[in-house]
Amino acid sequence: MSNKKINASNINPDISSVIEFLAPHFGERLSTATALRVQHGQGEDSHGCIPPDAVVYPSNNDEVALIARICNEYKVPLIPYGTGTSVEGHLLALQGGISIDLSQMDQILSVNAEDMDCRIQAGVTREQLNTDLRYQGLFFPVDPGANASLGGMAATCASGTNAVRYGTMRENVKGLTIVTADGRIIATGTRARKTSAGYSLTQLMIGSEGTLGIITEIQLKLHPIPELTKAAVCSFKDLEGAVNTVIEAIQLGIPVARIELLNSLQMKASIQYSKLSAFEEAPTLFFEFHGSTQGVAEQIGTIQALSDHHGGSAFRWAENTEDRNTLWKARHQAYFAGMSLQPGSMSIPTDVCVPISRLADSILDAERYAESLGLQCPIVGHVGDGNYHILIIFDENNSEQKNNAKRLSNYVVEQALAMGGTCTGEHGIGSGKKEYLLKEHGEGVELMRTIKLALDPNRILNPGKVFD
Amino acid sequence: MSNKKINASNINPDISSVIEFLAPHFGERLSTATALRVQHGQGEDSHGCIPPDAVVYPSNNDEVALIARICNEYKVPLIPYGTGTSVEGHLLALQGGISIDLSQMDQILSVNAEDMDCRIQAGVTREQLNTDLRYQGLFFPVDPGANASLGGMAATCASGTNAVRYGTMRENVKGLTIVTADGRIIATGTRARKTSAGYSLTQLMIGSEGTLGIITEIQLKLHPIPELTKAAVCSFKDLEGAVNTVIEAIQLGIPVARIELLNSLQMKASIQYSKLSAFEEAPTLFFEFHGSTQGVAEQIGTIQALSDHHGGSAFRWAENTEDRNTLWKARHQAYFAGMSLQPGSMSIPTDVCVPISRLADSILDAERYAESLGLQCPIVGHVGDGNYHILIIFDENNSEQKNNAKRLSNYVVEQALAMGGTCTGEHGIGSGKKEYLLKEHGEGVELMRTIKLALDPNRILNPGKVFD
Repeated sequence: MSNKKINASNINPDISSVIEFLAPHFGERLSTATALRVQHGQGEDSHGCIPPDAVVYPSNNDEVALIARICNEYKVPLIPYGTGTSVEGHLLALQGGISIDLSQMDQILSVNAEDMDCRIQAGVTREQLNTDLRYQGLFFPVDPGANASLGGMAATCASGTNAVRYGTMRENVKGLTIVTADGRIIATGTRARKTSAGYSLTQLMIGSEGTLGIITEIQLKLHPIPELTKAAVCSFKDLEGAVNTVIEAIQLGIPVARIELLNSLQMKASIQYSKLSAFEEAPTLFFEFHGSTQGVAEQIGTIQALSDHHGGSAFRWAENTEDRNTLWKARHQAYFAGMSLQPGSMSIPTDVCVPISRLADSILDAERYAESLGLQCPIVGHVGDGNYHILIIFDENNSEQKNNAKRLSNYVVEQALAMGGTCTGEHGIGSGKKEYLLKEHGEGVELMRTIKLALDPNRILNPGKVFD
Repeated sequence: MSNKKINASNINPDISSVIEFLAPHFGERLSTATALRVQHGQGEDSHGCIPPDAVVYPSNNDEVALIARICNEYKVPLIPYGTGTSVEGHLLALQGGISIDLSQMDQILSVNAEDMDCRIQAGVTREQLNTDLRYQGLFFPVDPGANASLGGMAATCASGTNAVRYGTMRENVKGLTIVTADGRIIATGTRARKTSAGYSLTQLMIGSEGTLGIITEIQLKLHPIPELTKAAVCSFKDLEGAVNTVIEAIQLGIPVARIELLNSLQMKASIQYSKLSAFEEAPTLFFEFHGSTQGVAEQIGTIQALSDHHGGSAFRWAENTEDRNTLWKARHQAYFAGMSLQPGSMSIPTDVCVPISRLADSILDAERYAESLGLQCPIVGHVGDGNYHILIIFDENNSEQKNNAKRLSNYVVEQALAMGGTCTGEHGIGSGKKEYLLKEHGEGVELMRTIKLALDPNRILNPGKVFD
């Protein structure tokens, strides 16, 4: 949680050999500068920073393969880096090694509008892709908030606000190019929309967090930009009303594009921080509807009826694009809004995902426990998926608060597991949730380890992540 | 293709030891009777029959684990069996061994209507599940035609007519219980709708065709039975018109539940066999629309406009449930209808999947080549996915026709691969398409083999399938 001490740069002889080997090839694209190493040794979390020994910027598959081969030969760790927006200590150089920054592999290699797919290099970011696509009437829906690289998003199985309708990275990747630990370049999948041809290496790599291979290219499914997009906000007397509205909407098969839940405390924070003055400090749903004029009208009619039944307010509309952007910007700023509740504090941002029938119980339980511990915990949830984020704010100089924060974080995960849920819906395991992965999957982790050792016998790929 | 000779039952000493060990435990649920062995040594294809040495019927996870442990100890092959409806030689006991028939594991363990999921044993069939669910307003959409077991469907990554809207098995399985080669019982996944917790063992097992583990339980996603279901048929002047109608519908994001293409020859066969007297011998689309009254009307309006533009006839409606059932029964009978074109013949039923923009080219090319070889080849396609089935009919006693059939089958797959497609969209590799898997995935197959050997070092699980 606290910033760990930055390693002194006692580069071991093997790493020196690797750097020596790579230096003539990469020139200025290989660096051991402290500032760069520090940047690459941390994510957007409070797991601290453990910098790698060097950072290298390959620009094509062959260069990634070259780096892998030499690192494998010298058994030097290799940590893939996209935009550094992960939140579970995925980037800590626990055993030193080389950070392989894929940001220069940022080419959109091809877009096929007829088949609605594209092939990109792993360093392309979500916003870059959507900017490029917008004149073709297509978009890529997976939106984890941060402007992450698609390679990182595939590696952590990212999802976000649109997943309730469009799926997560798992449902939107057709194939990958990966570089193995020993430097082989392997294409998985095809351009077909489905396949039964052999084991899905694509699906095995998604969510493997750089521990099984380095993702260098991705074949993505795209979606048509909807004819009409409308957004609305509805506040509720209580959290159950909000959650039950969503449960019934899902049961009716209403294809809502986004349904985001903010608890009262998060609304308080967002009203202040994002200047949402028209809104109430109450459990609130943010909706976005995609479709034809008629289809959207029908979705809205049904959802309004459901929310009326569950004590929801009248819908407040974000009529035009600007209003809609303000609304979703506020949603994306939820983290910073939350942090502003107690300026100068630290936080544990955790995420769990439970069966949707248990979501209200899970959140209310977390709120109660937080209150009993005297902690402030704004909550936002991708409620249609049963996935929510709790931001546990604490003062690092207050050891009781710090311990309570850890206690609450642990409690939320344990409760999620007891409810048949998962310890992370979209952040991944990294180095932060390894103990929970064991609790969740037990002997399954042994199988994962067997696969890891088979594909990366020298354990060079992002070692110490997912499991030990 | 032809029926291969049935093995003489020269049971090797290791298999005898396994049978001897299992006999007291399983009693009449273990059999070496020839008829049963023959039944279990073949699928619904023309890859012939190679019977296992014995068939055993476990009734719970522990019994499956017991069987795996003893087979692993003696290095005796273990071939999982569901309903025997696979079509790529998945069930051939290439190295002898034990067929593990999961049909007695047919319990629906739990249904949660609120979360729209259920947990079932692997032997539950698709029709059994939907019959059980119908009073709860829910259904399981994946429909490969045959009344297959869900375990078998997961193992081959089955899909079928509804996949264009509801996805394949890959998108509809939340978790599994598997028994490993060494007899460990491992649960994968959770009840959450999504997760980023570690490697997806669930996804790795889906499509692994019994070669990585034995699937014994499945956690499935369910869907609400739509308010309204309507079916229609539309014939086209040419195949391009039909395919272009579908491409544009997909691009517009119209959520059609089923879009099936039948080529002229398949229509000729189905008109005769299934008594569809009202229809024409022309490229034809069968549609099914799911949704609200208003939503379905809107879908139909859009699709009718698209098909008008592409030379489609007026829609012919299957107004009531009975008419609809007649229509989809005819679609499900397509194989038998096709075979009736040349009574007493054999056939190669193959399936490929291409990017949808290449579908018309791919089918027309196959039709032309078939004609040049003097072969009759009815074609049906899950056209929204770019997936089609070509039934290559030949007289086994006519060696030229037989060779030409093989030549055409090979041609169709090679063309699909050249177009960026896959050698199988839903049938799987089995023992029939191993050479094509290599062509499709190259070095990727080496990775698959590494994983296989790590999880099943004695190669007891369905050996000789997927790859050698």
